[in-house]
Amino acid sequence: MKEIEELWREVRELSLGNNGSIERLESPPSSLDFLRNFINPNKPCIISNAINHWPALSSWSHHSYLSHSLSSSSVSLHLSPTGLADSLTTAPPSSPSPLCFASAHVQRHVPFPQALHLITSSHSSAFVAYAQQQNDCFRTEYSALANDCDSHVPWATRAIGAMPEAVNLWIGNQQSQTSFHKDHYENLYAVVTGEKHFLLLPPTDVHRMYIREYPAATYSYSSDTGEFDLELDEPIRYVPWCSVDPYPSPQNKDEEVSKFPLYFNGPKPFHCTVKAGEILYLPSMWFHHVRQSPDDGGLTIAVNYCKDQAFFLAVNIKCKSQTLMRVVFYAGYDMQFDIKYAYFNFLQSLHYRSTLSPMVQEKVSEETSDSDALA
Amino acid sequence: MKEIEELWREVRELSLGNNGSIERLESPPSSLDFLRNFINPNKPCIISNAINHWPALSSWSHHSYLSHSLSSSSVSLHLSPTGLADSLTTAPPSSPSPLCFASAHVQRHVPFPQALHLITSSHSSAFVAYAQQQNDCFRTEYSALANDCDSHVPWATRAIGAMPEAVNLWIGNQQSQTSFHKDHYENLYAVVTGEKHFLLLPPTDVHRMYIREYPAATYSYSSDTGEFDLELDEPIRYVPWCSVDPYPSPQNKDEEVSKFPLYFNGPKPFHCTVKAGEILYLPSMWFHHVRQSPDDGGLTIAVNYCKDQAFFLAVNIKCKSQTLMRVVFYAGYDMQFDIKYAYFNFLQSLHYRSTLSPMVQEKVSEETSDSDALA
Repeated sequence: MKEIEELWREVRELSLGNNGSIERLESPPSSLDFLRNFINPNKPCIISNAINHWPALSSWSHHSYLSHSLSSSSVSLHLSPTGLADSLTTAPPSSPSPLCFASAHVQRHVPFPQALHLITSSHSSAFVAYAQQQNDCFRTEYSALANDCDSHVPWATRAIGAMPEAVNLWIGNQQSQTSFHKDHYENLYAVVTGEKHFLLLPPTDVHRMYIREYPAATYSYSSDTGEFDLELDEPIRYVPWCSVDPYPSPQNKDEEVSKFPLYFNGPKPFHCTVKAGEILYLPSMWFHHVRQSPDDGGLTIAVNYCKDQAFFLAVNIKCKSQTLMRVVFYAGYDMQFDIKYAYFNFLQSLHYRSTLSPMVQEKVSEETSDSDALA
Repeated sequence: MKEIEELWREVRELSLGNNGSIERLESPPSSLDFLRNFINPNKPCIISNAINHWPALSSWSHHSYLSHSLSSSSVSLHLSPTGLADSLTTAPPSSPSPLCFASAHVQRHVPFPQALHLITSSHSSAFVAYAQQQNDCFRTEYSALANDCDSHVPWATRAIGAMPEAVNLWIGNQQSQTSFHKDHYENLYAVVTGEKHFLLLPPTDVHRMYIREYPAATYSYSSDTGEFDLELDEPIRYVPWCSVDPYPSPQNKDEEVSKFPLYFNGPKPFHCTVKAGEILYLPSMWFHHVRQSPDDGGLTIAVNYCKDQAFFLAVNIKCKSQTLMRVVFYAGYDMQFDIKYAYFNFLQSLHYRSTLSPMVQEKVSEETSDSDALA
């Protein structure tokens, strides 16, 4: 559908730029500038020198400091076979579809020193451990570290007009990845140690992500056998998720490209690396895929400020607007469910009719029929 | 096309409200609140008690004050047969189409006292006179009144991040009307005497306006014969304009409704009356139709702060985005050509396929084919 492809181009020409790079600010913007130049136009940016005053920047690279500060804390740890948790994988035999959306095994109440050991030793164990509980964990499980960071990002809080509803801590290693998805809230992502590598696509590219509904499944890990079991959630529920893996293995590359031509043959995604001491503003509704590089101690640690319960919202997003309004009403760093959001829902509700070869077109309309089912 | 009708509904449910009324603020908002709650979501509002300190509010209702202050000023006056200038009318015989877009006869260098007399005596003369030159006239032709108003609206200037590029004065009577159209800039409309009555539709309703290209024509008035002549502009040029007259005469009503069912049968337009001392924030890209009621002296006077050359932009809007970017770069109170604008262009580029009766559907797709030609 040439109009949709023109939309992909125009949003880049008018607002985002065509070179696939994210704008960088050398210092924190004023609240007005941040609201006017980034939140309003739904445009990401990376801000340097905004958290230089955080004690965390120096102290968190020392495992001894973390272990000592959190010696009496218990945390939740996400375990997965490969580090690809909350992502698509081959479904168990009982599944109605070949792929499912697999959530990690969540090991609760792990003494922090042990959790830290499990994360750093993942490469030599049967699982990859990732502390990525997105339930305001920094202000609960990790409250002993509260004085190492600001409780919010002042210029962003003033711009958005509300305090963050959730502040989360992420402690992972180079094996942890987050698959393509979007969130319905404004997100500020501060990297403290290591680096995060983001692939970003604007909401206007929704048809390029081939969002479909996948049955939800959850890993369970047995410390006795040292093995994972993957089972569909009961009662069965479906999660709308992006089908695209941007880094397919060489042997799968051709098949992936032919299954998802709009992603692989369209405008290249925006790519950025967020270094320790930098903040990424990730606007609401942007599709993002995240990988990470550890610091010398083998860790990547980040704090993000946002609204929690992404999945709750992701499900609610399919309900009537009135429901959304209620959610928004109590939200912290939540997006405005305004004309941009209405435009997005309209766009997502449209079938994509490709101008590509008939063979590909067939695949595409197949994909987007599914995608439409979500709209 | 049910998706487009759902968009009309959703933008009202999520952001604008369903009762067709415009939000009112009892005092000027902070720059952050104005940017976050109105400019970002592209949502109009009426602000009271924002210009109480303007000397104009008391002095401009006295014709003697205006005549004395501008005794040595010459101004531009727009003359039309009925007060419907810059609107569609029956085209001259030479026209390729039955209707044309008729601009008023512009009488330049009229001594202000005479201009004021012509405006107030329009009801008893062969023409309707309207001082509505949109070329920053308040800071040029009417500079003698500069101290009666603020040179800009401070909280809006801070929110938008730039001074207005044009400040215009409008002096008219009850016969002057402005037909449905949209502007590509943020507009603040301060009424000083009398009242302005606005009909407003959001950009998402673009298909309901039946925008088509009409040949441009201009009235010329002969003071000898006291008659108007309407001639097509040479070389012939086309102006994209809204086809809908929201107030058809009783005898035309049925035909208008059947020609423009999406307007007359869709969600009702937002309606508001802006009284002396109030400011209307008219967001970029909103379709608006304006009528007015005079004060006891027979005048409606307003000052608006915006970017000038609406028609220049209206034409340019059809050019490649790069052109727009250049325009924007130098603009004052101009809109952000951002994701909202890209979404709008996308929406406008789509054919509207009605879910109405086949007969109506035929008409509609006919209309929108034209409309698409503009996109």
